Amino acid sequence: MEYIRIPRGTRDLIKNEALLHEYLIEEFKKTARLNGFKPIVTPTIEFFELFARKSGEEIKRSMYVFKDKAGRLLALRPEVTASVIRAYLRSLRGEPKPIMLYYVAQCFRYEEPQRGRYREFWQGGLEVIGDRDVDADLRVVSTATEYLDTIGIRHYYIVGNVGLYRIFMKSLGVNEDDQDHILHLIDKKFIDKAFKYSEKVNPVLKDVLRDLLSMNLNQLNELIGKYTKIVENKVDALEEEIKRTIDFIDMLNEIGINAIYDPGLVRGLAYYNSIIYEIKTQKLDISIGGGGRYDNLTMVYGGPSEYSTGMALGLDRIILILKKAPIIVEPGINVLVIVLDKGRDMYKIGFDIMKKLHRYGLRATIMGVRKISKALSYASRAGYTHAVIIGSREYEKRIVTIKNLVSKKQVSIPYGEEIGSIIEEYMGENW
Amino acid sequence: MEYIRIPRGTRDLIKNEALLHEYLIEEFKKTARLNGFKPIVTPTIEFFELFARKSGEEIKRSMYVFKDKAGRLLALRPEVTASVIRAYLRSLRGEPKPIMLYYVAQCFRYEEPQRGRYREFWQGGLEVIGDRDVDADLRVVSTATEYLDTIGIRHYYIVGNVGLYRIFMKSLGVNEDDQDHILHLIDKKFIDKAFKYSEKVNPVLKDVLRDLLSMNLNQLNELIGKYTKIVENKVDALEEEIKRTIDFIDMLNEIGINAIYDPGLVRGLAYYNSIIYEIKTQKLDISIGGGGRYDNLTMVYGGPSEYSTGMALGLDRIILILKKAPIIVEPGINVLVIVLDKGRDMYKIGFDIMKKLHRYGLRATIMGVRKISKALSYASRAGYTHAVIIGSREYEKRIVTIKNLVSKKQVSIPYGEEIGSIIEEYMGENW
Repeated sequence: MEYIRIPRGTRDLIKNEALLHEYLIEEFKKTARLNGFKPIVTPTIEFFELFARKSGEEIKRSMYVFKDKAGRLLALRPEVTASVIRAYLRSLRGEPKPIMLYYVAQCFRYEEPQRGRYREFWQGGLEVIGDRDVDADLRVVSTATEYLDTIGIRHYYIVGNVGLYRIFMKSLGVNEDDQDHILHLIDKKFIDKAFKYSEKVNPVLKDVLRDLLSMNLNQLNELIGKYTKIVENKVDALEEEIKRTIDFIDMLNEIGINAIYDPGLVRGLAYYNSIIYEIKTQKLDISIGGGGRYDNLTMVYGGPSEYSTGMALGLDRIILILKKAPIIVEPGINVLVIVLDKGRDMYKIGFDIMKKLHRYGLRATIMGVRKISKALSYASRAGYTHAVIIGSREYEKRIVTIKNLVSKKQVSIPYGEEIGSIIEEYMGENW
Repeated sequence: MEYIRIPRGTRDLIKNEALLHEYLIEEFKKTARLNGFKPIVTPTIEFFELFARKSGEEIKRSMYVFKDKAGRLLALRPEVTASVIRAYLRSLRGEPKPIMLYYVAQCFRYEEPQRGRYREFWQGGLEVIGDRDVDADLRVVSTATEYLDTIGIRHYYIVGNVGLYRIFMKSLGVNEDDQDHILHLIDKKFIDKAFKYSEKVNPVLKDVLRDLLSMNLNQLNELIGKYTKIVENKVDALEEEIKRTIDFIDMLNEIGINAIYDPGLVRGLAYYNSIIYEIKTQKLDISIGGGGRYDNLTMVYGGPSEYSTGMALGLDRIILILKKAPIIVEPGINVLVIVLDKGRDMYKIGFDIMKKLHRYGLRATIMGVRKISKALSYASRAGYTHAVIIGSREYEKRIVTIKNLVSKKQVSIPYGEEIGSIIEEYMGENW
């Protein structure tokens, strides 16, 4: 039978996958809060202009764009950083800096779906606004790693610096559109295309790009000597970016976080201007997250200059990894409180027991049924571990029957006995 | 200065409002899980057809509709129940019944924004599929009430039964479109319009509607006698609906949940077929939630007949109420670990202390700074309660300085002392 389908690249999360999704979100929020980040929730729909200005050509092409009834061009957010900066300009400029924010939000990109790539996907992100120091980048990354460690994802960082590319290209007089396009080609690993394109733009550019793409961290300072004439008044800026990259990687390794320099890393978002990084695992060939500095994105939206850095994790990709190594997200006791005959007094007793179990943090569901056998069969199939039965026999004698659905042990005890002792005695491990 | 604006009817949730939002979502999920509901996450974008089939004319008119690049008509979900039923048909039919699901999701309706009404708004919902018994409705409502009690929202239920209207109209040969339109008018409290329209449809209909709109719960059975000829072979169905409504209200009151019958309640969603209800508070003149039975919505999507019931709470409206009576969602200790000079060893010590504090469940942020005074001023303004300071003096002496930012007390202790005792001694209430 043909039911209504689901749009391509979207999916339903159900059963274990939904539990994992919830668990990943809750742990992310908890870790972010523990590290001093505050929540922000921005709209799913924004004006198209917000993302069109500086998100990069690939994202711009793959946005879900539509008009509202008043004819204004709207878009489903392809990412959240632009919204956070907009919200900062609108409402958070008076807050003490650095401002540390986190979000969990679904994003939308109209791309060809692949393993780990969906048209609607979930991101957990961290942003720090108003802190120029590499310390801010470390704070973001160490929070992300604390989260990934908590949920058991072994990972490492590859680090690049798109600022080096930008400074050289700017010095060579390459305009911003050409810069963005060349970086886009490098990001997509179309290195030959990038070289070809750069030859047309500037005769020296290809050599510079070749050096930037091949030099390791310790060689970077040689770049300044080699291209002194080109970089001229940008030497300080270059030195600062090189130092920042070295500091960042060294400090990460110092505090036990694996990070290596990847000269070819440039990332797809056009607003990055300095350190950038991606998070890798052995389990997936695509990154599970990434981020970097995007100082002065505020100015793209008409605001004053401001420092900013941040990152986002792809929660759907993390689910893919955790599904391979199933983790138990919902352990323990799960009680079905079965009320037979639905006599009102009996239901009230059942309801009372259920609420008390909840107060002890135990899962418990109430069910009024006609046949005890059907209820018990449901309880076993649906994963309940215990049943509390209130039938007419029980009601007359003022007792309840407790049944362990795994060991099949059963006992009847007077109703009204302290629920805590019942849990300890009959819902513990030994009964 | 004119920054990029935010689309009308949407908003940023920041600071206390964002914390409240997170808290409301987390508590909702916790309560749903305690009651045996399982999470489901459906796409934000669905095919337009899914909602167009049976969501009601008002919602249909106010949907965000757009085409994807392949020309298929998509919509931003105006509500989640249709998606849940679609997901059930697609993937959950083999699960033991009743299937109990919960979701938290933003929905979209292009309506005139008003107090408590946004174009993008958040719903927390509960659904039970495969349970014909009123017990399922009670389970949904008692879970919602347990949640509202937890977060401190005094509330009551108004209960109606749209099935009574439907049975009478069907008996009178009123087609489904006319039924939907008349119910829509009643929902909008355009009673005179509903009467006028019904006169055109069927001469007896107006009298029936007038009776349905005015009779209280105990009078409902009189309806059957009065209109015996009309309802003919529908008497059993009518009796069942009346009994279900009485049972539902009585049982709710029995277990301490306030519920009253409201004959004029019909609700705006066209898929309801029996008991319906809304949740009211003294603090807002609009409902904070609502729900009811929607048996056989499965058939609208080409599936087999199936029982279903559910409800959704408007989280944005609950925020409005809680904002008036501010609740503390983020209490307690909040530590800024200040590392001066950013010596790598010092940063490592700071990082180590921060991680240990997190393990004790305490919020702690690390910050590498040049000037202690600036860091302390930031700490106070940003709401930190304690500072742990690691400067060069401290580093040389292998000590750390702990400062209570409220009492201004300060102490230096050897680094490496057990963090638990530090927390107890210097971050407790007495110091």
